[in-house]
Amino acid sequence: MIRAAIVGASGYTGGELLRLLLDHPQVEVVAATSRRHSGAYAYQVHPNLRRRTALKFISPESLGSADVLLLALPHGEAQHKIDELARLAPRIIDLSADFRLRNPQAYERWYGAPHAAPDWLSRFVYGLPELDREAIAGASHVSGVGCNAAATILALLPLARAGLIEPLGPVVVEVKVGSSEGGAEGNPGSHHPERSGVIRTFSAFGHRHTAEVIQAFGREDVSLTMTSVDTVRGALATAHVTVHSGLTSKDLWQAYREVTGAHVFLRLVKESRGVYRVPEPKILAGSNYADLGFEYDEANQHVVAMCAIDNLMKGAAGTAVQCLNLMHGWDETLGLTFPGLHPL
Amino acid sequence: MIRAAIVGASGYTGGELLRLLLDHPQVEVVAATSRRHSGAYAYQVHPNLRRRTALKFISPESLGSADVLLLALPHGEAQHKIDELARLAPRIIDLSADFRLRNPQAYERWYGAPHAAPDWLSRFVYGLPELDREAIAGASHVSGVGCNAAATILALLPLARAGLIEPLGPVVVEVKVGSSEGGAEGNPGSHHPERSGVIRTFSAFGHRHTAEVIQAFGREDVSLTMTSVDTVRGALATAHVTVHSGLTSKDLWQAYREVTGAHVFLRLVKESRGVYRVPEPKILAGSNYADLGFEYDEANQHVVAMCAIDNLMKGAAGTAVQCLNLMHGWDETLGLTFPGLHPL
Amino acid sequence: MIRAAIVGASGYTGGELLRLLLDHPQVEVVAATSRRHSGAYAYQVHPNLRRRTALKFISPESLGSADVLLLALPHGEAQHKIDELARLAPRIIDLSADFRLRNPQAYERWYGAPHAAPDWLSRFVYGLPELDREAIAGASHVSGVGCNAAATILALLPLARAGLIEPLGPVVVEVKVGSSEGGAEGNPGSHHPERSGVIRTFSAFGHRHTAEVIQAFGREDVSLTMTSVDTVRGALATAHVTVHSGLTSKDLWQAYREVTGAHVFLRLVKESRGVYRVPEPKILAGSNYADLGFEYDEANQHVVAMCAIDNLMKGAAGTAVQCLNLMHGWDETLGLTFPGLHPL
Amino acid sequence: MIRAAIVGASGYTGGELLRLLLDHPQVEVVAATSRRHSGAYAYQVHPNLRRRTALKFISPESLGSADVLLLALPHGEAQHKIDELARLAPRIIDLSADFRLRNPQAYERWYGAPHAAPDWLSRFVYGLPELDREAIAGASHVSGVGCNAAATILALLPLARAGLIEPLGPVVVEVKVGSSEGGAEGNPGSHHPERSGVIRTFSAFGHRHTAEVIQAFGREDVSLTMTSVDTVRGALATAHVTVHSGLTSKDLWQAYREVTGAHVFLRLVKESRGVYRVPEPKILAGSNYADLGFEYDEANQHVVAMCAIDNLMKGAAGTAVQCLNLMHGWDETLGLTFPGLHPL
Repeated sequence: MIRAAIVGASGYTGGELLRLLLDHPQVEVVAATSRRHSGAYAYQVHPNLRRRTALKFISPESLGSADVLLLALPHGEAQHKIDELARLAPRIIDLSADFRLRNPQAYERWYGAPHAAPDWLSRFVYGLPELDREAIAGASHVSGVGCNAAATILALLPLARAGLIEPLGPVVVEVKVGSSEGGAEGNPGSHHPERSGVIRTFSAFGHRHTAEVIQAFGREDVSLTMTSVDTVRGALATAHVTVHSGLTSKDLWQAYREVTGAHVFLRLVKESRGVYRVPEPKILAGSNYADLGFEYDEANQHVVAMCAIDNLMKGAAGTAVQCLNLMHGWDETLGLTFPGLHPL
Repeated sequence: MIRAAIVGASGYTGGELLRLLLDHPQVEVVAATSRRHSGAYAYQVHPNLRRRTALKFISPESLGSADVLLLALPHGEAQHKIDELARLAPRIIDLSADFRLRNPQAYERWYGAPHAAPDWLSRFVYGLPELDREAIAGASHVSGVGCNAAATILALLPLARAGLIEPLGPVVVEVKVGSSEGGAEGNPGSHHPERSGVIRTFSAFGHRHTAEVIQAFGREDVSLTMTSVDTVRGALATAHVTVHSGLTSKDLWQAYREVTGAHVFLRLVKESRGVYRVPEPKILAGSNYADLGFEYDEANQHVVAMCAIDNLMKGAAGTAVQCLNLMHGWDETLGLTFPGLHPL
Repeated sequence: MIRAAIVGASGYTGGELLRLLLDHPQVEVVAATSRRHSGAYAYQVHPNLRRRTALKFISPESLGSADVLLLALPHGEAQHKIDELARLAPRIIDLSADFRLRNPQAYERWYGAPHAAPDWLSRFVYGLPELDREAIAGASHVSGVGCNAAATILALLPLARAGLIEPLGPVVVEVKVGSSEGGAEGNPGSHHPERSGVIRTFSAFGHRHTAEVIQAFGREDVSLTMTSVDTVRGALATAHVTVHSGLTSKDLWQAYREVTGAHVFLRLVKESRGVYRVPEPKILAGSNYADLGFEYDEANQHVVAMCAIDNLMKGAAGTAVQCLNLMHGWDETLGLTFPGLHPL
Repeated sequence: MIRAAIVGASGYTGGELLRLLLDHPQVEVVAATSRRHSGAYAYQVHPNLRRRTALKFISPESLGSADVLLLALPHGEAQHKIDELARLAPRIIDLSADFRLRNPQAYERWYGAPHAAPDWLSRFVYGLPELDREAIAGASHVSGVGCNAAATILALLPLARAGLIEPLGPVVVEVKVGSSEGGAEGNPGSHHPERSGVIRTFSAFGHRHTAEVIQAFGREDVSLTMTSVDTVRGALATAHVTVHSGLTSKDLWQAYREVTGAHVFLRLVKESRGVYRVPEPKILAGSNYADLGFEYDEANQHVVAMCAIDNLMKGAAGTAVQCLNLMHGWDETLGLTFPGLHPL
């Protein structure tokens, strides 16, 4: 059993971390901080945890040492206290955007300000196990992933790994997302009468998660267009990719099977009958699976590559716990076995 | 053509009033005030009005005279400036809760503070035409209605008018409502991830609209239990009533036909086949209809009486325009002919 | 490890049973039947089970022996083959309505036809552990529960157990339910454009689950009014009850604490702040909790008693697995620890 | 006043036509056919029309002559009886897919079967007024539009009219749609528990509406990817377009202003503040507006061009009535002035 503390536990990602770790067979949650809800029972903020824990949120200042810290602070905070936090625990997983990029220039370009602790950037490993499981297993400091970045990277992964993508020509990615992605704080656009039933493109270009996709594949010509739709959890990334000429459908099947075969949380969904023929986030709520799929228009060398995730799980807390497992040499799926619900 | 001004036009009720009056054949909207959005185009707040009007919101202080003022201010404001407002126009329709009750004691009991202009209470007529059309037609000052009160009163109206209800024994009313009822300002509970998919009983007893039902029928033993569900517009009031012994289903049919026959916006919905057999708010969005229905358990003298409305129309702006029509001797349905959409 | 078979595994209840038993530490699922989907992989019908099981549905005729059968057949089927099924396994849990009532006359009254195996009625125990845990623990044949009955019974349980309810006067119960309650087969009213956003009272009187409530408490004057709202999972039962005069709020608190203290899956939700102050099904999806709450209008001796559940879990498959645990002397919560998600 | 008959009036498009024409100042609806619901009151199928019309559906065989026929039959039916129908009325507007394409080969390619009345194809004008208002005004036979085609064509129209699009390189269009697009008949995927909350890409390539886009702009390299989301009405087409190098944002503004200035139902939505900054179908329910918007990534010559519509209005019945108006020399907006609701 290791002693874990969650820093910033009152947001949606923090709450999901708490839920997962409370049921994790190798973890004891020794503390959970919340500046705003300090002193409150965790279940008063995360009502699903009622009767599951008597934990009370403590103030960030009261945080003591632990074996691992999981940081779920608002973006921009962790980089200012990383030295201080690093003294409290030998291992840190930071779910914010602060340590996802390796390059300080890239950080400044996408986040609009210089990084406050640029030296730390190289000490963090990007926390998507499907990109580099070994690096995470050997790391003491791991970042989280942007949920839309994770969905996009995983959508592209089979094609990229197999080297099927044309080097030139834009990769157009449309991501459709639920409302939990915006976090636990309301805003005028998240007020239910304004948010219900929307198909709202809130970012056509320049979404910050794009930087993670560029970093993952080393190509700049990727655009993410983000559209909010009426669900709470879930994201579907749809990437439009030009592949090499002469490829057959069989080549693509093989590329997908290779990748989904190598990673326990990736599933290929490509059915010819039934209701659920393609990846859909709807059935993934609470699950750590990323469902992949593709369609191929051979005449135009055009592949539509899809990835569906629960943005709070595979796109945030689930992947973080997966990294936690890898960092400790445990089975990758420990505490992550909930399969999702049908119907929901 | 009369000159109308809307005071407090940036909320949901104000926006609905604006939409209705812009298309009203006998009305010219000469001003619309908004303290918060003063200077903005109306369509920037109410995006459905883009290209429909070049009207800009003005500050409340800039308001000049008009033939009629429609007040859609937050509750508690109009009573403090009613004298001042009354000097600007000979006719006022106040959609807030300020002038709905005739009795200052009742106001204080339900609203928790003494009324600021108790003398004005008797000068206002309660603005539900189906209760007293003549009084409204002859009035210069008319109140709006509470949306849940309107739905409840109309649900009970056929039984009450026909004298079928037992004088003793509680009238239990369950009202299920959409999120627009909470108004245009967000709160933690209206944040989409928290509000989506809810079945949330936010008030078991003591909802203020109860006072209007008590006033309408002169009996105190009425309780309203309010539950939020996942829709934006719409309210369904379901009243559980004990009726006199010996009544037949035919007696009830007759009571309903009498009332729905006498009021152009009341419809009896009681089908034995098809999807839409009972009143449902879903098909009433944008419509001023109130759909009534009932079921009768003769063995227990128990009637379930239902009324479905669009809370922003028949429950607010629609009924106000209906009153406006009556006050000017116009056809009651002027500007209120949109029938609602199917499907939606 | 016991060997369990699910009979009728392609519906929503059957799928939920399958999900639960696949992760149950003491159960091996040896067969799952589906007439319609015989030969298909379970995950083709229940897409959340992809990669979780290679189980294929078999035809009902191929079913062999097992330690326990869980029947999730359409209502009316199990009673016609109960003798045959009973030969296959010493223990049966039947989730249909066929063996919930003890009295054949009651069955005929509520289901409109004589029971096909009336002798079996007395051999089944009604499967709601909170009503009689001991009886279930000692039984070989246990029925499931009607989801609305379960919610209603649990809403009333604290008041009934403490003897606080007036013997005369109707108990009016309003139940608001999601669409999964209607089962996996579509109908014109479940077509998304017709079902989305509804507040649809599909049964004002006479819902068959009423019979279970009457049986549980031995009083006839209970009415259930059923209203569909826009969610997939979840039911909220709101019971309007007249309690003895002179009761204080404290008396009620004590009654609730007694019952929620005695049953691990019952929680009292009654907060004075935060978003989640009362029982809400929204946060219970996938969980076996039943959340109870109450509000008290002392002046009118009127209690509003609430119970929120996931209709497919505590209202169906969850309670069945809870019974399975009790019948085998295992911890009641085995395989039922998923706490639900927030937000969702 | 002209005499209009609706053929196939029980579907969603037919119902919307009926709603519009019943309120149209120049039209008398003399008949509405429905094979399935023959003899039923129109309001029993379209419940929003209760008290608005005493019209009963007649069987197709009973249809007599009229001044204009509006055909809302399932795809593939009108082409088999067009001669017969043409004898009943001098003017026909066919809302099905049967007469949208000019080229019989294109029809066969996209619809998988030879056209049954190829000679008629050249006698119909494609019924999107924004493409060729004059042709429609002078036509006796006009087709409807595919809703996704209409949204896509209008999204691209400003760029195409101004000649800003690069001739080579794919035009990738992602269309997000509501459930009413699937029509009034249910299917397993439209069952509410399966359809609620989805982000479901039901067609990655080859959607038939693509043919109309290709026909409109004369380029083949257009792909439509269709994704269902949780709303009933509404479609948002997002087109990814490579434009000529050297274009400035100003050039694009001008192109959009030119087109939205020339067409009364097109609005440019591009705000820098507020909730509704981009086109959104949510506020368009019941309205005939098509809201256009764009974002420009100058570095990559990449334009994201958006168009939001109500698929049953601008995407079907609304545009058909607009054509009807043009064909009779009436104001284009007659009967089409409902602006949509906010909030909804």
